[in-house]
Amino acid sequence: MARFEYEQFMDKALAQAQKAFETKEVPIGAVITNPSGIIIAAGYNQVESQKSQTAHAELLALRSASQNLGDWRLDGCILYVTLEPCTMCYAAIQLSRIKHIVYGAQSPVFGYKKDQDCFIKPFDTQITIIGGIKADQCARLLQLFFQTQRL
Amino acid sequence: MARFEYEQFMDKALAQAQKAFETKEVPIGAVITNPSGIIIAAGYNQVESQKSQTAHAELLALRSASQNLGDWRLDGCILYVTLEPCTMCYAAIQLSRIKHIVYGAQSPVFGYKKDQDCFIKPFDTQITIIGGIKADQCARLLQLFFQTQRL
Repeated sequence: MARFEYEQFMDKALAQAQKAFETKEVPIGAVITNPSGIIIAAGYNQVESQKSQTAHAELLALRSASQNLGDWRLDGCILYVTLEPCTMCYAAIQLSRIKHIVYGAQSPVFGYKKDQDCFIKPFDTQITIIGGIKADQCARLLQLFFQTQRL
Repeated sequence: MARFEYEQFMDKALAQAQKAFETKEVPIGAVITNPSGIIIAAGYNQVESQKSQTAHAELLALRSASQNLGDWRLDGCILYVTLEPCTMCYAAIQLSRIKHIVYGAQSPVFGYKKDQDCFIKPFDTQITIIGGIKADQCARLLQLFFQTQRL
């Protein structure tokens, strides 16, 4: 897949992050495409409004995608997210059988640990992870949010 | 806390697992107590009925507890679950600020990795994890489920 294609879907994830920003949530957004490259689900961080740490953008998008497809197996789907996933979301993505993750900005604190398998017995499939797509825009929105919080 | 107290709450988690069993889900159940030892939330595995890998017993219980308390921070709460949590759930428990996990049977495949921190920058608090509470009963229900599936 060409970089400009990744960027097009990252724009959609950024639009989700913008929704989070507007509702005073940490601005992180995600979309999921099916094997034909059609967006089948989207989500943005709602930890504060839903009062739950399970309301990360990725988990909401995963739930929505599975419900739309009527199957928890999301084989061949791609997840796009504006910030590198945390371990909870990374494990949820693996459990959902997604093998391709595209993210924007890096997360120095809560990112999953790259050199480790998530599970005791690792899944037998490789996961392709592409980072740094529209990273500056993704990071800028987060910086703007945290600056606003400090005012 | 005395072992018989853990066992009392594990019985409640087992009752949740039984509900999963009756709805043909892998029988795993969880309950969460508040700092006074009162159960404030419960959940059982609903991956098939909700068609989502995010519908593990622990995640459903966490969401319910946070909504009941009106806060995603579950400081001082204890999570009881019939099977050792997977990495997704273990990370969600940490993100929710729970520092005490009690589980029943061990999970040889999907259990979180004990010798690893979940996050790049680990939380600065220790988590107390007690395993093996009513382990035989918890494992027996799972075995019964998988035997039934093979018939």
